[in-house]
Amino acid sequence: MPSKLDTLIYFLSKLPGVGNKTAKRYAIHMLQHRENLMLPLSEAIEETSRFTYECVECGNYDEEEVCYICKDQNRDSSLLCVVETIADLWSMEASKVFNGKYHVLGGTLSAVSGRDPVKLNVPKVLSKIKTHNIREVIIATSTTIDGQTTAYYITEQLKPLNVPVTRIASGIPIGGELNYLDEGTIAAAFNSRKTFL
Amino acid sequence: MPSKLDTLIYFLSKLPGVGNKTAKRYAIHMLQHRENLMLPLSEAIEETSRFTYECVECGNYDEEEVCYICKDQNRDSSLLCVVETIADLWSMEASKVFNGKYHVLGGTLSAVSGRDPVKLNVPKVLSKIKTHNIREVIIATSTTIDGQTTAYYITEQLKPLNVPVTRIASGIPIGGELNYLDEGTIAAAFNSRKTFL
Repeated sequence: MPSKLDTLIYFLSKLPGVGNKTAKRYAIHMLQHRENLMLPLSEAIEETSRFTYECVECGNYDEEEVCYICKDQNRDSSLLCVVETIADLWSMEASKVFNGKYHVLGGTLSAVSGRDPVKLNVPKVLSKIKTHNIREVIIATSTTIDGQTTAYYITEQLKPLNVPVTRIASGIPIGGELNYLDEGTIAAAFNSRKTFL
Repeated sequence: MPSKLDTLIYFLSKLPGVGNKTAKRYAIHMLQHRENLMLPLSEAIEETSRFTYECVECGNYDEEEVCYICKDQNRDSSLLCVVETIADLWSMEASKVFNGKYHVLGGTLSAVSGRDPVKLNVPKVLSKIKTHNIREVIIATSTTIDGQTTAYYITEQLKPLNVPVTRIASGIPIGGELNYLDEGTIAAAFNSRKTFL
């Protein structure tokens, strides 16, 4: 295997979920599309690496110190949505359901991985609430064990601040079949049932 | 979404099997590992793009006109293995079972995709056999419909040349359970059974 190609495959295999086979597949595909994929991709990686930073306010990525969401005057800055990752923030944005500001934790509390409240910038959430006149904190962490633990931890921390804290609902995904869902989800959906008539 | 990051995600999503979600995941992972992944990856792509070519002899990739396999004096140049893709060549090499030379077709015959014998360099296989004193042609195309058709087509073309042509065996993969295999594979394995005692 030529050494440059070998190096390329090595670094591609460092991407999440990419093994040696997939890395080879990507490398070959790139070499077969040099002009319209390989070179522009290399440039896009380099440019993004140089000009993309974490927003000092919320933790989202942008090319400026404060991101496009935090700067947006049309968004309700009295609503704060707490998410685990930037990918989660993007998913929330894609749903177009929320028009407030965000706080990206950068993960969940985890004794195993050594992520403590300070690493998740929880103190920053508290200071934001104190200074920004927040009227609702929406906790949108995942419903995994770690996500739930984190949600409960943050809620505990927020108690003394007397700010309403909500948690996004658990239940049957839209389009989901009960038949294929676990008992936990069905129980959560049942317990959170709403008046329909 | 900042535009440079958006461009990066766009190009990542052009990789085979990569959708928008995976592209975002790759981009975020890269941004979280700028020094030890993002920058070296960008460089590796650029370098590979500039210095890697298809071998004029076999179609494998290398940094020189004739690849490390074709140049290798310790390999038996009277054996020619015909494979569909460079990835297949690499898989053959990984199995360490073959010590001859290769011919990469670059795909299979396909009326739908418009790949004809000339695109697959079949005439080149013929001229190689005439000039290189080949004593066996091993056809190692896939056992898909297109791969089998291609194998039969090449075999037909080779008939007048009076060179022994072999086809890699079909059968139960090592570690495979009959229970999970299709009838075609089981029938092929049965029909190609070998004397055991």
